[in-house]
Amino acid sequence: MTAPPPGLALLLNRYSLGIKHLQAPGPDAAQLQTMVAAALRAPDHAELVPFRLVVVQGEARSRLADLFAEHAQRKGKDADGVAMERERALRAPMTVAVLARIDLGHPLVPAHEQWMCVGGAVTNLLNAAHALGFAGKMLSGDKARAPHIAQAFCEPGETLVGWIALGTPTRPPHGEARKTTAQALRFW
Amino acid sequence: MTAPPPGLALLLNRYSLGIKHLQAPGPDAAQLQTMVAAALRAPDHAELVPFRLVVVQGEARSRLADLFAEHAQRKGKDADGVAMERERALRAPMTVAVLARIDLGHPLVPAHEQWMCVGGAVTNLLNAAHALGFAGKMLSGDKARAPHIAQAFCEPGETLVGWIALGTPTRPPHGEARKTTAQALRFW
Repeated sequence: MTAPPPGLALLLNRYSLGIKHLQAPGPDAAQLQTMVAAALRAPDHAELVPFRLVVVQGEARSRLADLFAEHAQRKGKDADGVAMERERALRAPMTVAVLARIDLGHPLVPAHEQWMCVGGAVTNLLNAAHALGFAGKMLSGDKARAPHIAQAFCEPGETLVGWIALGTPTRPPHGEARKTTAQALRFW
Repeated sequence: MTAPPPGLALLLNRYSLGIKHLQAPGPDAAQLQTMVAAALRAPDHAELVPFRLVVVQGEARSRLADLFAEHAQRKGKDADGVAMERERALRAPMTVAVLARIDLGHPLVPAHEQWMCVGGAVTNLLNAAHALGFAGKMLSGDKARAPHIAQAFCEPGETLVGWIALGTPTRPPHGEARKTTAQALRFW
């Protein structure tokens, strides 16, 4: 039995970690560049780069907290619920909004392949964060589809997919390995 | 300057490699399981596993070659063009068809998030193949949308996205780093 090749353990052991288990510091500028470079290495038919990553950190987190709180109020949440939404934006030292730019009329690349590229980018960004000692998870839900929140992030033609919360883990990210390869693997 | 963490170089240096640069051997059964396990670690909202991976290897490659050749004939390609399509199925020692199973009516997870999971799975499968010393690339195009080919792979409700060709590289996969992080990164 030989040791697994470098990098394989990383891929097999990355688990998402909730915001309540994240603390400062978040990635620094150089680490962020590395994470985005990894995102750009996801398969991307025709090299469209059909996404933008928008970084929210430092003081900008309060603006995001205001948006989340306003959304919670509009949904009729009580004071505790609103406070929890604020906390969701404030606790992670870095939050990266994921915007998709899907060209529905591209002659070569169907929309679903462009969405797959966005997903590959998110996966590789999280893989790279994990390799650098950080943890986090993708957040989406109805907040991402609220018009006043989408407008705060998107240029025309962009779709706000959600946010990747990132920080230093307060406990090791681990999962329960609920999935088995038999769920996904067949032979022709 | 400290050395990059294990796994990071893998993510930054994976490039797709065309079928003509692939040779035997392909992944063995244990390596395939590892690659699929990595695919299953891509972010997957609500753990839907919205994909199936169908392995074509050994003798099954001739059946795939027949389908590709038939498609080329229907498109009016000449003998050389048809032979090239056969070769596309026969040269890679392993080809993995990617089928998406998108639940358009899911109450929590929009279709685009499910497509992102499929893309993350493809990205991690290729990352893992690269970590194990293999190379390859995703193939799609109009073949994947030809009804007689889709029917040969799909159950009802499934979409054939394309194929991941895999093998041992005859030259190191490398790219030209045409993309820069500035294309994808903004600050809010």
